[in-house]
Amino acid sequence: MTESVPTETPPLTGRIILSDNQYGKAENRIVRIVRDSPRHEIRDLNVSSCLRGDLTAAYLTGDQSKVLPTDTQKQTAYAYAKEVGIDSPEQYALALATHYVADITPVTEARIEVEEYPWVRATVDGTEHDHTWVRGSAEVRTVAVTHTADHTWIVSGIKDLVILKSTGSEFKGFLTDPYTVLEATEDRVMATSLVLQWRMASLDPGTDGWDALYARVRQIAIEQFATVHSLALQQTLHRIGQAVLEELPNVAEVRLSAPNKHHFLYDLTPFGIDNHGEVFNADDRPYGLIQAAVSREDAPPAGPAWVPYRNWLA
Amino acid sequence: MTESVPTETPPLTGRIILSDNQYGKAENRIVRIVRDSPRHEIRDLNVSSCLRGDLTAAYLTGDQSKVLPTDTQKQTAYAYAKEVGIDSPEQYALALATHYVADITPVTEARIEVEEYPWVRATVDGTEHDHTWVRGSAEVRTVAVTHTADHTWIVSGIKDLVILKSTGSEFKGFLTDPYTVLEATEDRVMATSLVLQWRMASLDPGTDGWDALYARVRQIAIEQFATVHSLALQQTLHRIGQAVLEELPNVAEVRLSAPNKHHFLYDLTPFGIDNHGEVFNADDRPYGLIQAAVSREDAPPAGPAWVPYRNWLA
Amino acid sequence: MTESVPTETPPLTGRIILSDNQYGKAENRIVRIVRDSPRHEIRDLNVSSCLRGDLTAAYLTGDQSKVLPTDTQKQTAYAYAKEVGIDSPEQYALALATHYVADITPVTEARIEVEEYPWVRATVDGTEHDHTWVRGSAEVRTVAVTHTADHTWIVSGIKDLVILKSTGSEFKGFLTDPYTVLEATEDRVMATSLVLQWRMASLDPGTDGWDALYARVRQIAIEQFATVHSLALQQTLHRIGQAVLEELPNVAEVRLSAPNKHHFLYDLTPFGIDNHGEVFNADDRPYGLIQAAVSREDAPPAGPAWVPYRNWLA
Amino acid sequence: MTESVPTETPPLTGRIILSDNQYGKAENRIVRIVRDSPRHEIRDLNVSSCLRGDLTAAYLTGDQSKVLPTDTQKQTAYAYAKEVGIDSPEQYALALATHYVADITPVTEARIEVEEYPWVRATVDGTEHDHTWVRGSAEVRTVAVTHTADHTWIVSGIKDLVILKSTGSEFKGFLTDPYTVLEATEDRVMATSLVLQWRMASLDPGTDGWDALYARVRQIAIEQFATVHSLALQQTLHRIGQAVLEELPNVAEVRLSAPNKHHFLYDLTPFGIDNHGEVFNADDRPYGLIQAAVSREDAPPAGPAWVPYRNWLA
Repeated sequence: MTESVPTETPPLTGRIILSDNQYGKAENRIVRIVRDSPRHEIRDLNVSSCLRGDLTAAYLTGDQSKVLPTDTQKQTAYAYAKEVGIDSPEQYALALATHYVADITPVTEARIEVEEYPWVRATVDGTEHDHTWVRGSAEVRTVAVTHTADHTWIVSGIKDLVILKSTGSEFKGFLTDPYTVLEATEDRVMATSLVLQWRMASLDPGTDGWDALYARVRQIAIEQFATVHSLALQQTLHRIGQAVLEELPNVAEVRLSAPNKHHFLYDLTPFGIDNHGEVFNADDRPYGLIQAAVSREDAPPAGPAWVPYRNWLA
Repeated sequence: MTESVPTETPPLTGRIILSDNQYGKAENRIVRIVRDSPRHEIRDLNVSSCLRGDLTAAYLTGDQSKVLPTDTQKQTAYAYAKEVGIDSPEQYALALATHYVADITPVTEARIEVEEYPWVRATVDGTEHDHTWVRGSAEVRTVAVTHTADHTWIVSGIKDLVILKSTGSEFKGFLTDPYTVLEATEDRVMATSLVLQWRMASLDPGTDGWDALYARVRQIAIEQFATVHSLALQQTLHRIGQAVLEELPNVAEVRLSAPNKHHFLYDLTPFGIDNHGEVFNADDRPYGLIQAAVSREDAPPAGPAWVPYRNWLA
Repeated sequence: MTESVPTETPPLTGRIILSDNQYGKAENRIVRIVRDSPRHEIRDLNVSSCLRGDLTAAYLTGDQSKVLPTDTQKQTAYAYAKEVGIDSPEQYALALATHYVADITPVTEARIEVEEYPWVRATVDGTEHDHTWVRGSAEVRTVAVTHTADHTWIVSGIKDLVILKSTGSEFKGFLTDPYTVLEATEDRVMATSLVLQWRMASLDPGTDGWDALYARVRQIAIEQFATVHSLALQQTLHRIGQAVLEELPNVAEVRLSAPNKHHFLYDLTPFGIDNHGEVFNADDRPYGLIQAAVSREDAPPAGPAWVPYRNWLA
Repeated sequence: MTESVPTETPPLTGRIILSDNQYGKAENRIVRIVRDSPRHEIRDLNVSSCLRGDLTAAYLTGDQSKVLPTDTQKQTAYAYAKEVGIDSPEQYALALATHYVADITPVTEARIEVEEYPWVRATVDGTEHDHTWVRGSAEVRTVAVTHTADHTWIVSGIKDLVILKSTGSEFKGFLTDPYTVLEATEDRVMATSLVLQWRMASLDPGTDGWDALYARVRQIAIEQFATVHSLALQQTLHRIGQAVLEELPNVAEVRLSAPNKHHFLYDLTPFGIDNHGEVFNADDRPYGLIQAAVSREDAPPAGPAWVPYRNWLA
């Protein structure tokens, strides 16, 4: 162990203060059915609301007079599912966040985090059914809206987008040190469970709306993953971020987190069996984990857009 | 929905750039046995290592010449478990972080995140057994060391500390609005699964070492939770943070995240049964989620101490 | 508490014996790529193999001379993925089970349990990609083959088929007792995460093969769930089982397990908001759990077909 | 693949019948506080109740007139937590099961499955606290009571008992075949997450009661695991079962399921580091899985004691 660490800090004696704090109701599982016609619609959300403001008294003396109960936030989330509806998770989250800042005096900043679970209509006799759905995939659509009196930040996203390519991926020419035993490869399986989040430069999703924007970003990610001949997962991530920004001028920044879900070629040589990229062990742990942000030089400031609620200390 | 949102941002045209990025090997499951005597010792870790530096070429062109493979980081984590040993997760993480910055040229900052799982010695005929352990509890000890050539930040922590009190907790006098239906209570069950992290002001855990410091913070948290008559979970969290800082001058800041694991009094009145705080439904979701940081006015800057690796986009 | 329990049994003094036992290697995560042409194919399996036979010595004296190591079972599972291939999980499981009974003398019965995870080809520029896939859904295809020298039993199945209908479901006219407070409903959301398993009457899946048979049963289940006006989840389950048996003469028995994933209409009346089947709370626990077997009077004996391996004591 | 499979079965034409079926309410999360004195007591249960009987009409025609709603079972479970109390999970489950068979006419058999989560009193200033607890460990105590008008079966158990020994375990002298590459070892880490269930021969736990019986079986398992020099996990399991039966004459049968949680010695030779049983990789999957039943020759018939509810098709 080298000696680059700083000199020991003397014991601290400063006054103890409350600094960052936030509170709310996490994981309201709201299902909204629209049944204005025989062909129903469904939105299936997991909603977390978080309030920020001067709530010091609650912490220091237990005075709750400025604290809107988390139960009230729950009631509000369900009520808004009817009152403003859920055209998209973005629109619904904006409505909730705006309400808290506008209507609840002690609240100066609100953050609404939404997960949406996909459903696809059941097909019966070749026709889409009016009121039955099958859970589409394990992918989750995410939205985080942060709102103050002056500003609003929207981060839309997708997580658990599991994707795999069975060729078109290399890993070679890397740095080595005495602990390096990995051999280079020019053809491997590359798989990940992509987390992709994009910060909007405006509150305008474009003419086709929030759902279409989500679908387009998802498709860009899949196409880049498929078609980029990958020299490393880093490169693939950057190309995804770049492609999103190039096509969508109202996106300011893209962040990506990608576990390298290792598929190790299984050694069948003890049994005299050739294995040219055919049989793999899908390993659980450890996994490589590559993370990057791709943004524009003229992106507006991120402010609290990336300050999480549920995962603040995760 | 009020109209407090900003004017629409014009489409952006700025150059696309790589900004924050980091990579490494997550969740190496390392078990270290010390067997120098018949009385063995065990440390059971989940180790994630993350490197930061100028790795732009890997993203832009796929050039891996500055990229130490994540497989090498895995080998190093296991090798260091023997070479430097695991006296504590803090000491081991410091050794790894220091190594990467000192010995791997492109690396300017390293972050090592460790989870430690507790084991307790099996008792056989009333005596602690030399080489058999039972998994102690579901609690997890955590460490995050971030290191540059000039500075080192250590955040120690505990998570999944599940704790409950069956009285001594109120919730009343709160703010109300038209969505408020919650009734005040002067006696409720309060339960949480506490996440508690403390940022060190120095690299010195005190004369009793890192394990003792961990045990002491855990005990302070439990004692405060038990003995503070709670007017709200916010107050309890603040008192825990305050007590840690008051007793431990080498701690600069404490952060806490506490889901309010609701235990709802079950309504047995339809059956003519009184239920005075005796039968509860332990509900899953939603849950209140209260989070706060308590620090000292003279705390040194946090720098990247709180910038996570595994949960960067969680 | 009534007094219907039997008289106390006297203490037992009989000889202690080993009765049922089985062992194997669980959860081999095998991914098989077929790359004979540029258009690759993928099968993604979780394979558990279990051997039964006279292995008493291993238990009583630790004598391993009749015990084929679980590591060998792992090697075999991976080797067979290449040697016999994976045309379907049923064919692959049959090959493994047959091998153990035929080739490993102490083994008199083998059970192979397989989970298969679905992948769908990525679409790029409107065309299916040759070597990139997205994880299709969270549904899991299952197979359990049990094999002795004389007989073979195949149970195919699906689990985690999450399905929901927003109308067309009632629950009324039920039995009541003093603990009954539930109100009848003529229109509710009905949702489940269906587990469906069908025992084959033969080893012949029909002319279209195992994959087509699986797809057909899945479709029957979805169509019945959608189109049966449900008076209770029990009725829907029976109709699914009945429909499968009516259409598929080579299926002997169908078993179904269905959690009633409650979607409770959220009470918005305190806020003066009507909620006519539009806003629901998707509750986690508790849940109704309905289970049934539907079979044919002339079904061959089930033998060990339903004796599980991984979940033997689950 | 050998040809030991039976001749193809002709298509079946028999009448379709409902065979096994059961239903109930799963996972009621009941927390019971006893507060008759300042020193409170806590029991934390997950309760599933399952009814069996002639419920054919519900399946065939949707007629619910014999179906006691699962919601009623939920109400009953909570009401009984107060009315009969929870002296032990066994006594509480017996009361519920007996009630359903005695009081609800269509019910001929009831099964109550209970999980209990352990809490330990917080220690404050060296003294056990009156009303604060910390969640003890991840271990779960289990009970399954099955009851008819004539008989009662009780299976008590423990699951997720994670235990590890760092020496005193061998694996050698095993059967080999062409797929065997495993090398024998005379000293390895042995670890498991034990599931242990014991079927009672009577309803009498002995003079010390159900909690003491549970604690004693747990201790026997730990002591055998620790002290038996293990030639294989099979042997250790048998010795645990044998020891329980030898000591406890009111236990008829013991069943054990034990994943072999592999701790692989990490190969540090590429780095010139000796690793004599010191650094291990705790692997996730696959894992060996060993299962056995140990019983008495004069054990009473098991009847439906081992027929599960929640995991019927797991």
